[in-house]
Amino acid sequence: MSVSNYQFATRVSNLMPNPLREQAKHIQSADDYIKLTYGYPSEQAFPIEKLATLSDKIYREHAVDFMQYGESEGIPRLREQIKERLSQYQNLDVENNDVLITSGSTQGMDLVFKIFVNEGDTVLTEEQTFVGAVNAIKSYGGNAQGLPFDMINGCIDTKVLAQTLAADTAHKIKLLYLIPTFQNPVGTSMSLEKRQEVYAICQQYQVMIYEDDPYGDLIYNNIETIPKIKALDTSGLVIYAGSFSKILAPGSRLGYLLAPKAVFDRLVLVKQVADSFANLYWQYLASQLIDDYDFNEHIDYLRQIYKVKAETMVRALRQYVSQYMTFVEPDGGYFISVKLNHDIDPILFYDALDRYHVGVIPGNIMSAAGQGYERYFRLNFTLPTEEEITVGIERLAQAAATARIKQQTAL
Amino acid sequence: MSVSNYQFATRVSNLMPNPLREQAKHIQSADDYIKLTYGYPSEQAFPIEKLATLSDKIYREHAVDFMQYGESEGIPRLREQIKERLSQYQNLDVENNDVLITSGSTQGMDLVFKIFVNEGDTVLTEEQTFVGAVNAIKSYGGNAQGLPFDMINGCIDTKVLAQTLAADTAHKIKLLYLIPTFQNPVGTSMSLEKRQEVYAICQQYQVMIYEDDPYGDLIYNNIETIPKIKALDTSGLVIYAGSFSKILAPGSRLGYLLAPKAVFDRLVLVKQVADSFANLYWQYLASQLIDDYDFNEHIDYLRQIYKVKAETMVRALRQYVSQYMTFVEPDGGYFISVKLNHDIDPILFYDALDRYHVGVIPGNIMSAAGQGYERYFRLNFTLPTEEEITVGIERLAQAAATARIKQQTAL
Repeated sequence: MSVSNYQFATRVSNLMPNPLREQAKHIQSADDYIKLTYGYPSEQAFPIEKLATLSDKIYREHAVDFMQYGESEGIPRLREQIKERLSQYQNLDVENNDVLITSGSTQGMDLVFKIFVNEGDTVLTEEQTFVGAVNAIKSYGGNAQGLPFDMINGCIDTKVLAQTLAADTAHKIKLLYLIPTFQNPVGTSMSLEKRQEVYAICQQYQVMIYEDDPYGDLIYNNIETIPKIKALDTSGLVIYAGSFSKILAPGSRLGYLLAPKAVFDRLVLVKQVADSFANLYWQYLASQLIDDYDFNEHIDYLRQIYKVKAETMVRALRQYVSQYMTFVEPDGGYFISVKLNHDIDPILFYDALDRYHVGVIPGNIMSAAGQGYERYFRLNFTLPTEEEITVGIERLAQAAATARIKQQTAL
Repeated sequence: MSVSNYQFATRVSNLMPNPLREQAKHIQSADDYIKLTYGYPSEQAFPIEKLATLSDKIYREHAVDFMQYGESEGIPRLREQIKERLSQYQNLDVENNDVLITSGSTQGMDLVFKIFVNEGDTVLTEEQTFVGAVNAIKSYGGNAQGLPFDMINGCIDTKVLAQTLAADTAHKIKLLYLIPTFQNPVGTSMSLEKRQEVYAICQQYQVMIYEDDPYGDLIYNNIETIPKIKALDTSGLVIYAGSFSKILAPGSRLGYLLAPKAVFDRLVLVKQVADSFANLYWQYLASQLIDDYDFNEHIDYLRQIYKVKAETMVRALRQYVSQYMTFVEPDGGYFISVKLNHDIDPILFYDALDRYHVGVIPGNIMSAAGQGYERYFRLNFTLPTEEEITVGIERLAQAAATARIKQQTAL
């Protein structure tokens, strides 16, 4: 047997390496490289001093507990705290649903797709969406089908949703995967009316909704908080996914699912198979942080530092790039979505970005179909400093200037 | 949609909840309950003081690194250290293979089965094997097919292996899953000659081998270390799986796979989908432990404390239960496998164990077929104290005495 003829399962044969990872390696070695690429939190966002203090405390009080095997559901105290918060602040039903602690929100979607998606099934998504979700769907032999997406209003086309479900007489569509609040890559949110509409349609066609909400707490304007789709869930149709990655630390590898109990029971079984239980050190640490400190205060702090960064990026985009591209002003979250004007050649532009040492995520990578979004790209504003944001956007303009398609001269 | 008619994927419809989990909840509440059940390390096995010191150090030196996102492969330093150890002590080829850090060894098998097992495929195992592996195989729609297993010699029947592979003209058999060293549940090891034979057969039929080796370092007698099957792997057929759960802390959720590079590349893709990366805190902690302390000394310490426990259990079994059951003396690992004599009714015996407040794992739960091993059960000796071991085995005898089948009186 030579290395070239391993017979991999068909479900993984469609998975392609992320082209950015390889590219990034040589480009990112430049000293002046500016990363507007991935959804990384700011390094100032980690409450390191507090966590170091709490770490000493849990070493004194729980060392054996977090070194030994743990329950697949997660530690009882953290699950309770999450339920209390979801009930108190989001008005979610924590009686008919239960909380599973996952190894990051990445695992949450992996487990849900595993229990619902047969090979050949379909999951509907926003046309521009989280690439990790698309890959997870594919990894079970499923198809990710993007729905037309109104970026300004952060909402899929509900008419197309209803038509698509009505046409699905073979019931191949198993889930609707949405990021309704501060969407990735757009940063806008679906209105309450649209959420109600989407829920009613899914209720009619009995399709589950996966409400992915890693950014929900990170609001940067004073508009009222929009209820979660899960808050409308009277029929046990919605799986709500939260995460500590964007509001505490991605390294915690802590996310959670709030799921109807029958779904929760299945999730526990595949969680056991996946990795037995989420790392206990961070479960105890996060739980202690919520107990000993005001977690809302920490979130307020994040809102402040990220609001400044978001505004800095919006200001720079207005100042430097308006003749080359347009963008959607975000209400919260981690990202701004940008669209190149028609006189900018996308391939020349991305090549120029590499030369100017700026990283962004091209729209096709974040597209369910992997195409059709050549002119779009995503910018992250949480990781870079304000200075890096301004310089990075200046370079976008410089790169765009070199990528302008020359007007054809009339004969 | 009512809760009763969720349409789960066929691949998970075969997964059943572990019957022990529910049972255990009410029985384990007893104060005098003795747990000879799960493969938990001793609480004395965790180097808590050292880890607390190293934790302070990594908080000072790497806090931002372990709070931020990390690489799916694992942190470079720990991967290097693992490769160095595998090369130095096991003579494994770390040039044509690469190391992926997994979220516990549980995730290692989950990822491997995901990339190799199509629905309807088969994975061969020892008839008595790790239930987690069987569930993981089923969770991808695969079948776990047990091969006749010689418990005394820790080895599958190689003749049946060859016949089974020869008969598999449709190439449905994708992997051979083995725990060749200090097998779970038996504690014995396959000889070098048998390993060579198994490898040659798999090479002939081009079937991958998953060598699961969580217990390999825990040897309690002075016999020479047997080379890993991976050490024989000239054709890129063997995936070797190691773990820190049994030799450092299960809470670390750190395992690793050494896999041929083409397999490694696929594993990285499904690792990204599964949970992006293994928790970084423990990756830094384990790496620092290997750097700053003598890890071999720690393993020697474990060998000492577990050897005493293993001997205590063997002694107690000889003393108390020899008229009711037989057992296999282990060479290492965590377990002893016991078989009830023919005059003991297994159902009455397990019921009596519940009344006597002793936990064991019945053989059918650890059997690939889920049946045929009614008379067998597994004992763990690493978690209980020596006193608990002795009392626990005494109770086994008492339970067996109540479960003796009465001789039928001749008419």
